[in-house]
Amino acid sequence: MSGAWPTIKVNGPDVFRREDEIAEEFPLTIRLDGEEFATLVCSPSDLEDLVVGFLASEGVILTAEDIREMSLDEERGFAYVNLHRPQSTGKDFYSKRLIGSCCGKSRQFYFHNDARTAKTVTGGINVTAADCFAYMRLLQENSADFRLTGGVHNAALCRDGELVEARSDIGRHNALDKIFGHCLRHRIPAKNHAIAFSGRLSSEVVLKAAKIGSAVLLSKSAPTDLALRLAEDLGITCAGFIRGGSMNIYTHPHRILL
Amino acid sequence: MSGAWPTIKVNGPDVFRREDEIAEEFPLTIRLDGEEFATLVCSPSDLEDLVVGFLASEGVILTAEDIREMSLDEERGFAYVNLHRPQSTGKDFYSKRLIGSCCGKSRQFYFHNDARTAKTVTGGINVTAADCFAYMRLLQENSADFRLTGGVHNAALCRDGELVEARSDIGRHNALDKIFGHCLRHRIPAKNHAIAFSGRLSSEVVLKAAKIGSAVLLSKSAPTDLALRLAEDLGITCAGFIRGGSMNIYTHPHRILL
Repeated sequence: MSGAWPTIKVNGPDVFRREDEIAEEFPLTIRLDGEEFATLVCSPSDLEDLVVGFLASEGVILTAEDIREMSLDEERGFAYVNLHRPQSTGKDFYSKRLIGSCCGKSRQFYFHNDARTAKTVTGGINVTAADCFAYMRLLQENSADFRLTGGVHNAALCRDGELVEARSDIGRHNALDKIFGHCLRHRIPAKNHAIAFSGRLSSEVVLKAAKIGSAVLLSKSAPTDLALRLAEDLGITCAGFIRGGSMNIYTHPHRILL
Repeated sequence: MSGAWPTIKVNGPDVFRREDEIAEEFPLTIRLDGEEFATLVCSPSDLEDLVVGFLASEGVILTAEDIREMSLDEERGFAYVNLHRPQSTGKDFYSKRLIGSCCGKSRQFYFHNDARTAKTVTGGINVTAADCFAYMRLLQENSADFRLTGGVHNAALCRDGELVEARSDIGRHNALDKIFGHCLRHRIPAKNHAIAFSGRLSSEVVLKAAKIGSAVLLSKSAPTDLALRLAEDLGITCAGFIRGGSMNIYTHPHRILL
């Protein structure tokens, strides 16, 4: 469930290169009675359990015996499920119910919609390693809610060693959407800012940074492999595990001055 | 963005009651040009930023000027948005694209689908405080991937001081769905087990525990207020911040023997 990624490790004054183990992000599309039902972005283990549990969570099945047959094509990322009694409820109902699935998305989402809004970031600001450490420290100091409740994620626009604007939300993506909305409403060019983020760097987070238009994405948490491949393609500098005076730089390191 | 919740704090041999600050979880439904577009579960701050950023992320708008008017009804949890040029793409397209939104769900999801599958849990096992600490320690020791990559969440079925079955995934909900699928495929009554979970206790996680049928939900992370209200209603014992020899018990404490 993990692979190696060439990483630049910064630890105080020490900078060295090392392969780092990165968690794998795997899109699995469930086809139910011949129709596309949902695509889950998941870790590629225990996929039968995942499919059965997801269908039960969504109320499609009540017991495992409701499934007539199930087969997996791990190579292509498909699960084929046929029920004893195909669902009578229409497609509209399904798609409404699916809105809630966290970290589930359709391939179409990646390839169709994101192609319209995510763009390759060129140029963009440079930051120093000291900036990266400062932004992450300020982000945590800034979040009164996090200190109080431990329950929210934080995102901030950063520039010239300071947090320009910070937003909090219980939803990782919401915190970033609040930053995006602020930029749009006040015509702030995100390209001239880094984004500091408390959450994990998943593919969706990298796509959102590209949509916002920032070229530097800084996190205190871990990335996934799909996130790093997207960041590589989209021209985004990703650094993770920024804690105290250390961090890992994964993609487009030229924007971080060491 | 937070409220007080009566909490039982366990710290080694000390047990005391205290109000704890809990992050608020707020459902906001966006009605776009008169039609329901999406419901985001979010923190109730900077909602204009959130709506604009979400619509831009989804490719519905390119700039803030694409919005003709926007108004918020915070009391009822609605955002009304009208565009200068209403979207020509059909409803089907929207609903497909929305599958990706993490932590967004329709009210219908809560009230219609969950009513079919989430049930109030009565009975259920008792656990000791020492069990709770042991399950959380074992959960972390068990996850080789987490130690290696820092990128996955873990969920486990627990009983008699041991992890019966553990699952990992980059998606919080996927880890729980894998446990649910395992129970269904092997006809394991989850009612006789506690669930130990590495992620935050959001409303969706509590609903999933109810669907799985477990009455004891243990987490190393923080809960949200909506999660605790649901747990209260659904009869589920929730404990959070389980770290070392301390934890907070939030709901139905009678199942945890102190």
